[in-house]
Amino acid sequence: MNKSDKILIIGAGLCGSLLALRLAQRGFKVELYESRPDLRTTDISAGRSINLALSDRGFKALRLCGVEEKAREICLPMYGRLMHDTGGNTFASNYSGRENEYINSISRGDLNGLLLTEAEKHKNVNIHFNKKCKNVDLDKNTAHFKDYKTKEEFSVKSDVIIGTDGAGSSLRKSYYLERKFLFSYAQNYLNHGYKELEIPADKNGKHQISNQHLHIWPRGDFMLIALPNLDGSFTVTLFLSYTEGEFNFENLTSEEKITQFFEQEFPDALEIIPNIKEEFMNNPTGALRTVKCSPWSYQNKTVLLGDAAHAIVPFYGQGMNASFEDVTVFDEILDQGLSDWKSVFKTYQKARKQDTDAIADLAIDNFYEMRDHVANPIFKEKRKIEMDLEKTFPTQYFSKYSLVTFNEDIGYNAAMKIGRAQDKALLNLIAGDEVHTHLNMTKEELKVILEKVKKETNTILEEDKIAGL
Amino acid sequence: MNKSDKILIIGAGLCGSLLALRLAQRGFKVELYESRPDLRTTDISAGRSINLALSDRGFKALRLCGVEEKAREICLPMYGRLMHDTGGNTFASNYSGRENEYINSISRGDLNGLLLTEAEKHKNVNIHFNKKCKNVDLDKNTAHFKDYKTKEEFSVKSDVIIGTDGAGSSLRKSYYLERKFLFSYAQNYLNHGYKELEIPADKNGKHQISNQHLHIWPRGDFMLIALPNLDGSFTVTLFLSYTEGEFNFENLTSEEKITQFFEQEFPDALEIIPNIKEEFMNNPTGALRTVKCSPWSYQNKTVLLGDAAHAIVPFYGQGMNASFEDVTVFDEILDQGLSDWKSVFKTYQKARKQDTDAIADLAIDNFYEMRDHVANPIFKEKRKIEMDLEKTFPTQYFSKYSLVTFNEDIGYNAAMKIGRAQDKALLNLIAGDEVHTHLNMTKEELKVILEKVKKETNTILEEDKIAGL
Repeated sequence: MNKSDKILIIGAGLCGSLLALRLAQRGFKVELYESRPDLRTTDISAGRSINLALSDRGFKALRLCGVEEKAREICLPMYGRLMHDTGGNTFASNYSGRENEYINSISRGDLNGLLLTEAEKHKNVNIHFNKKCKNVDLDKNTAHFKDYKTKEEFSVKSDVIIGTDGAGSSLRKSYYLERKFLFSYAQNYLNHGYKELEIPADKNGKHQISNQHLHIWPRGDFMLIALPNLDGSFTVTLFLSYTEGEFNFENLTSEEKITQFFEQEFPDALEIIPNIKEEFMNNPTGALRTVKCSPWSYQNKTVLLGDAAHAIVPFYGQGMNASFEDVTVFDEILDQGLSDWKSVFKTYQKARKQDTDAIADLAIDNFYEMRDHVANPIFKEKRKIEMDLEKTFPTQYFSKYSLVTFNEDIGYNAAMKIGRAQDKALLNLIAGDEVHTHLNMTKEELKVILEKVKKETNTILEEDKIAGL
Repeated sequence: MNKSDKILIIGAGLCGSLLALRLAQRGFKVELYESRPDLRTTDISAGRSINLALSDRGFKALRLCGVEEKAREICLPMYGRLMHDTGGNTFASNYSGRENEYINSISRGDLNGLLLTEAEKHKNVNIHFNKKCKNVDLDKNTAHFKDYKTKEEFSVKSDVIIGTDGAGSSLRKSYYLERKFLFSYAQNYLNHGYKELEIPADKNGKHQISNQHLHIWPRGDFMLIALPNLDGSFTVTLFLSYTEGEFNFENLTSEEKITQFFEQEFPDALEIIPNIKEEFMNNPTGALRTVKCSPWSYQNKTVLLGDAAHAIVPFYGQGMNASFEDVTVFDEILDQGLSDWKSVFKTYQKARKQDTDAIADLAIDNFYEMRDHVANPIFKEKRKIEMDLEKTFPTQYFSKYSLVTFNEDIGYNAAMKIGRAQDKALLNLIAGDEVHTHLNMTKEELKVILEKVKKETNTILEEDKIAGL
């Protein structure tokens, strides 16, 4: 393993382009292949979310690569959720009781373009667009491509091949099909799919609803969310079952039924989505799946990073952040001075997998929380107490959401374990009538609650440990 | 859906042959295809365990099909585990404090032969051997086969196709590859593999060690187990990591090293495994995987049962029992008088999947428990208390093991939830010094413990429920 090693990266999406940038900064010779055209010069919709939530784990990786400030310039801060009920009433719920903690809406395309441009500034990076990887010959370190423009097929041999080619990774498929080793693999679909719609800007180019919130219309079995874009529009996503319930993707096939559904469930949103019928009929319905696999690497030859290794559902707003954090962790492993790529890959997986497994599970949990719990009184009271605790004891209390989203130096797995125990402690204290809240809690009252929560959380963690959990 | 429907069953292993028998009893016309030769007339080793543990869930299904007594005739009862340490000392641990609760060692081949013979007695069953299913055309209800003897390929169309073709199911592979629907699929390998060895009968045809126990040589990272056969021999299985630890399957390649490993770790077993070197070198190393998937069925055409739907690791001795229980549950659904196969298949999965998911997870848990916990003092004390409770309050206390193994009218999922909460309660009571044991506990002392365990278990279940777990 040395600087003259040629690294082939398959996939120039968010993870691949950031990784290319970082490896170039470290002096490696990087060849970056992407199946789609250059998104900076072509208007492409990859059937994926147009905007995403960027938070502290993502920023940490961007900072490492010297592009944090450029990314911040194209961010729209979202300080909390704004819930909409069927009567058009809204209520806000902050993401944190600390003022400096918020998430950011950012355009996938703009950020990806920024990273490609930064990577390209390095002479030791070549980017090849319109080259689709068909499969990888694992023993020969050779990736086979098809050029979408010339239709020609060709092969590229490299010292190392890194698959950052997303949830449908061709490198991962080669792991599965070549059967060189026992490959643990899981793809789990939710029964819900998603469809993107748009709230356009008003005639002055301004946002029609608050651009400082992530909007949610929670309805139990389904929900609508909206994230703001810089141009004044919102990207709206409907999450809905394929087959269950009165309304589902299978039976929402007529314009009448679509209108009826939105009039009944999302009247305030319907008013500002002018092209609802066309968009609903024409935009694709996307599937939601979690992918886990192991091992991520093969010998000293290939490794998976980002969604290719661990695709997650979008409900924690952590997909991009987790993939960027992969780059941070991979970079830390490279700093250890290991002698060969095989050790780097194994050490990387060992350090990283428990955390990507955890965020996958947390994202599934949040799917249920966002749909159901936000309207549940006991969960609402918990959220209120947590906001008060974070505001009053900003260095002592961190909710699960804060641990996951704003504490980039705690791994996802630790955040999950502590966060879940804390949630359980607080919910049981509320249900058992052991903590009480009112509108203006004093610091002393909150201190008592803080101590109770801490004690109960530690008991839960200790008892789980004894039981071997 | 009616009696004249032709049912094609792929795979005449334990599940397929029992299912064929039951469907024949219900009057359906059954065609049963099997890739291997008839095991009643050919000596075949399918690379799978030669004997298995049969317990109450399995018996319930055999009873339903009228073959329980015939199966019991070829069973060897095992009343508990007999642990062997490296010094050759042994200590016994019963499976239950109730006398009538034990598991049974039974030959896979003998039981499978019995079921085939019973199925064949029905005129409406045809069994076809040496016919390997290559794939299934899902929309056309057609399975494609290759005849291993004539080498010819042919297709069979049927009203319904049921895949009972085991962990490597060709029907399940067709679900995965045909992409007719979103197919959630997980295959998870342990880092451990297994290898079978043999303790032969002594010169009088008798067992050389107790034939009333399942023998375990637990060594933390690896273990040996042995189950008795009717002919006086034992089938021994070594569970060992492929790559980790001082000794593993990758480095145990010389006769010297194999001998050294067994001399050091299993000296008492080594003495009675005369062909250790040949067997170790020649017998295949098997992989251990869990398979989960969903959906199990496609429209009104096909469905998976048994290992094809849910392969599990062998550490709870429930693989065969779970597959037999599938037949019980499927039969119950058929009793509901649903109008079409699609409803039958969907209702079946809805009733069954949480239980097969649970036993898969329990089997993984037990892998760690058998290797590690059996030597852990707090787990030993727990086991002792549980035996005392079961013996003293046979209708009031059921350990997790008993719930899973001997309580066939409680589903695996309920058994897991109650059993885990109970384990946690007991372990925490012991660790917190809230229960104490001595050699001759009185009924009054045990009653106090029973009440504490019940109370603590209910608290745990209640708190989990509040936290939405």
